[in-house]
Amino acid sequence: MSLLHLPHHDGSPSYVSDEAPDLGDTVTVRMRTSAADPVDAVWLRTTYDAEPVFHPTTSTAEGDAVWWSAELPVHNPVTHYRFLVVRGVEQEWLTGAGLVAHDVPDSADFRLAAFPAAPDWGRDAVVYQVFPDRFARSAAADEREHPDWALPAGWDDEVAFEPDDPRTPMQLFGGDLDGITEHLDHVAEVGADVLYTTPVFPGESNHRYNATTFTDVDPLLGGDEAYDRLSTAVHERGWRILGDLTTNHTGDTHEWFLAAVDGHDDPHRSFYSFADDGTYACWMGHGTLPKINHANLDVRHAMVEGPDSVVGRWLRPPFDVDGWRIDVANMTGRLGALDVAHEVARAVRATAADLREDPWVIGEHNHDATGDVDGDGWHGTMNYSGFSWPVWSWLRDPSSPARPFGRPVPVPRRDGAAVVDTFRAWQGTLGWRATSNSWNILGSHDSARIRTVVGGDAGVHRVAAGLQFTLPGVPMVFAGDEIGLEGVTGEDARRTMPWHRRDAWDTRTLTTYADLARLRRDHPALRRGGLRWAHVEADTIAYLRELPAQSVLVVARRAAGGAFTLPLGAGRHLLGSEPGGGDLVVGTDGIEVPASDGPRVDLWSLATE
Amino acid sequence: MSLLHLPHHDGSPSYVSDEAPDLGDTVTVRMRTSAADPVDAVWLRTTYDAEPVFHPTTSTAEGDAVWWSAELPVHNPVTHYRFLVVRGVEQEWLTGAGLVAHDVPDSADFRLAAFPAAPDWGRDAVVYQVFPDRFARSAAADEREHPDWALPAGWDDEVAFEPDDPRTPMQLFGGDLDGITEHLDHVAEVGADVLYTTPVFPGESNHRYNATTFTDVDPLLGGDEAYDRLSTAVHERGWRILGDLTTNHTGDTHEWFLAAVDGHDDPHRSFYSFADDGTYACWMGHGTLPKINHANLDVRHAMVEGPDSVVGRWLRPPFDVDGWRIDVANMTGRLGALDVAHEVARAVRATAADLREDPWVIGEHNHDATGDVDGDGWHGTMNYSGFSWPVWSWLRDPSSPARPFGRPVPVPRRDGAAVVDTFRAWQGTLGWRATSNSWNILGSHDSARIRTVVGGDAGVHRVAAGLQFTLPGVPMVFAGDEIGLEGVTGEDARRTMPWHRRDAWDTRTLTTYADLARLRRDHPALRRGGLRWAHVEADTIAYLRELPAQSVLVVARRAAGGAFTLPLGAGRHLLGSEPGGGDLVVGTDGIEVPASDGPRVDLWSLATE
Repeated sequence: MSLLHLPHHDGSPSYVSDEAPDLGDTVTVRMRTSAADPVDAVWLRTTYDAEPVFHPTTSTAEGDAVWWSAELPVHNPVTHYRFLVVRGVEQEWLTGAGLVAHDVPDSADFRLAAFPAAPDWGRDAVVYQVFPDRFARSAAADEREHPDWALPAGWDDEVAFEPDDPRTPMQLFGGDLDGITEHLDHVAEVGADVLYTTPVFPGESNHRYNATTFTDVDPLLGGDEAYDRLSTAVHERGWRILGDLTTNHTGDTHEWFLAAVDGHDDPHRSFYSFADDGTYACWMGHGTLPKINHANLDVRHAMVEGPDSVVGRWLRPPFDVDGWRIDVANMTGRLGALDVAHEVARAVRATAADLREDPWVIGEHNHDATGDVDGDGWHGTMNYSGFSWPVWSWLRDPSSPARPFGRPVPVPRRDGAAVVDTFRAWQGTLGWRATSNSWNILGSHDSARIRTVVGGDAGVHRVAAGLQFTLPGVPMVFAGDEIGLEGVTGEDARRTMPWHRRDAWDTRTLTTYADLARLRRDHPALRRGGLRWAHVEADTIAYLRELPAQSVLVVARRAAGGAFTLPLGAGRHLLGSEPGGGDLVVGTDGIEVPASDGPRVDLWSLATE
Repeated sequence: MSLLHLPHHDGSPSYVSDEAPDLGDTVTVRMRTSAADPVDAVWLRTTYDAEPVFHPTTSTAEGDAVWWSAELPVHNPVTHYRFLVVRGVEQEWLTGAGLVAHDVPDSADFRLAAFPAAPDWGRDAVVYQVFPDRFARSAAADEREHPDWALPAGWDDEVAFEPDDPRTPMQLFGGDLDGITEHLDHVAEVGADVLYTTPVFPGESNHRYNATTFTDVDPLLGGDEAYDRLSTAVHERGWRILGDLTTNHTGDTHEWFLAAVDGHDDPHRSFYSFADDGTYACWMGHGTLPKINHANLDVRHAMVEGPDSVVGRWLRPPFDVDGWRIDVANMTGRLGALDVAHEVARAVRATAADLREDPWVIGEHNHDATGDVDGDGWHGTMNYSGFSWPVWSWLRDPSSPARPFGRPVPVPRRDGAAVVDTFRAWQGTLGWRATSNSWNILGSHDSARIRTVVGGDAGVHRVAAGLQFTLPGVPMVFAGDEIGLEGVTGEDARRTMPWHRRDAWDTRTLTTYADLARLRRDHPALRRGGLRWAHVEADTIAYLRELPAQSVLVVARRAAGGAFTLPLGAGRHLLGSEPGGGDLVVGTDGIEVPASDGPRVDLWSLATE
């Protein structure tokens, strides 16, 4: 049965008159029910200084829909609300996690945040992630001397990735920034318009998350001049570029740390958290990654606060980044009883806002980012919990060698209903705006590749891409996913791009990525529209992305499945291979989505009421 | 089917080696599964500075149970954890809200708080709430002059309670503190050992939540000397006494407010939140209750911080209160973008801790107190959301004239499963310790009386009392509930105690309250034990309260119901009327709980393994 009769609200324009109100504004919020499933009354409940208050709604019928409307005062910086749905003696709550027939706490309440929204260019972007050592070598790379720590590797060498293999962080394939600049046409082919590179500061590893300085670009990558060339080339295309900063830690060879270790009275000593016995706090017990002590205001100034901080300097030419992806944002500023994480996030955001008109700051959080996003700090997060794991859990091949990231057991394979419950739980808790501003990732340099997760099945991989580009959130493509690269762990995923072996590319999947990016650009509903779940089976997940004047139906199937009907208008086919696609015409019970004999993803543009 | 096979954990001593650890401690946490429902592996997941970390568990079989044990470092002041339960390729999470087969955010994670626990006398208490004007008059009351605002009422007059009736706040029945002192034997008969009175400061109303001063006790109640006599008498019985303070607001006739209104330059002006046009913030739009501006440190010192604050002075003789119930704690210190609620709560707690060995501070929160309790502020809350409303929703008579409190529609009548889901949701979000330290209330001076909610059915009322005294939390009895007083709203619930009309008392219900209080005192499992749901039907809710050496079975029925079996040891009957009670003997499938032909609540002490 279609789910479209269920009461619905989300933070999109059909339901909220202002997605980014100011404190003190009044916003009109609307809830939709179905005339086929009558409701007696709807109340809007908000919390006003933590006290619940109910506002009446007024209803209007529009075709099959009934709209319930109320005025919501934006009284607190984050104003919570939900709906009480009354049918006879029955009462249900509609929160961001869906409809529930018992009383529940506020954690999944809808909310309006009275902080400026993320920049439009960010919300509307397709992000392309590059791990510089593995993306492309310029001719200049051949001329560079290798540092002592490095193990030079040939471009086609196998990537060492086992945790106990000493080569894993040391293999240097020699990709560089001019290599990226030379391949921006490929990024364009994918359809991306934001380039995000993992760190470019020097560090004694191939990943560079253990910086030795934040002053300059690694000469192995071409130095500051090469970054300037890349940044300029990106901007000339009308695109944007993001840096990657480890606010949580530095390398133990960082100039600050060396000064701190040497001198007990050195001012850099308090940049870190040293105990009396000389031990120091570090990331997850790794002594090579000493943790920054953000309780110290000097290090905050050096790193995140003001125009001359690392964050600030890079937002200006010659680097000229448009924003930051902040590494380990979840742990930054947190250590035992200390928690200044929000102060650090606010400082990054404020510094960026002072220096650029519309910067974007994304905090890495591989877990539950609730409360850390959508305030006056991070605009969004890398949404592993709310996107990657539910997608993996729906599509993974049980026999895949892909290893889990962040848990001791593989992500389990689950049916559509459980997967949709997961999406709902996270969208409800993160909230609509934070979900929309976060990154939909199928994987990254820290995880297995999606192609490996799905057992190498290109068709299922394309279903994953379909979800990535059409569910709320900003798609971030880890370079190589689009041509079907594999990898069983994050380290293994850092395989080189086979530029000289086009025959190894899965060009059909590349075309799907490009088609999805184009459809997303051409259909505002896919970027800004609400999300209504339409039909869910074990192997099928169908949903609508809707704006008042545009509606797109997405049907994702991980396996063969039967036809089903939806009470919707005619559909013009946008994506999906023949046979099994084609336009949808309205019959007795609405439109019939045809059966499929295997995994596929289809999009249709629907006639709106 | 019994629910006892389900994986279980809570914060009680069987599951947690230390309920109140210090930061840096390591606590052994255990999870229980059933040998009849095998589990392959269990992982303990915690968050360490907001990063998830998994710890392995070791398992031990004990009879029908399998115990999974792990060491949990208490790394953060509030350390979150949950269990990952693996069966073949299936994975489930066990959180405080129960078992779930998809990934969910952290909001219902179990947690250990590295803050001192509530005092034992508080956790183990039975609290008796007195609304002074309506409880009892001493002889001295007849001699007092009535103030201009008061409308004197005879003890047997009807209580005016309609919101638009001007008499509602003005009727003065003349109860006083010596009247309470004279009736402490009744409090003893109920089995209570903590006396909580609503405010005793002078205020131009019968409820006194609109104080005119915090310096003295209202002369209409007998003044400071009468409070001294009451406090002394309470302490002589080995009991405790709690004050009630409105930290959120004062009356508009308060000496501070009068000074503030008169003088723009008066230092009291900034005790409140005046706008330039002379308007001021107040409680829920009521101009008679101007809101305190806790951003101002002077008012914090006057009110909550230090030995000479209101909070501090009353903790010393002659008032000598053992702690405070803080009115409107949820809104205190919150106004739009301002939120210093935690600072105020911490100040109250710290002031109390400086002046008394084991004070208890309870914050009123009629909504979602998550995050406001169990830190270094309030020990607990008046648990309307997590206790009162689920109990009301299970037991309410659909035709009851009881009006809702805090919502525009009556609490709906729901079946046992939805009610248990509600308990789980709130216990999971508040956490075990905060739930255990919060007040189980069937009603208060702010709500309808339970007797009216259940449509006057004494048997159902006693079922409610059974839940109140045996679910985790501290029972707080609003004076008069124990003899069956009625009331359709909070104001109507403030009826006088009919001391001279004992024939109007429901003495059977009084006996049940006394029996429940005695059983609670005699059975640590009912005060400190874990909670396992045993059997749930629409009309039956059965659960265990368990300590390692003691187990009590509670079976609550709102209506007639059939027999059912539980895989448990023999039960000695502790409470419940014949026929239908009696001891339980072990048969083929465990014990059989007998059928019932109507509402009843039974308790059995079980043979432990």
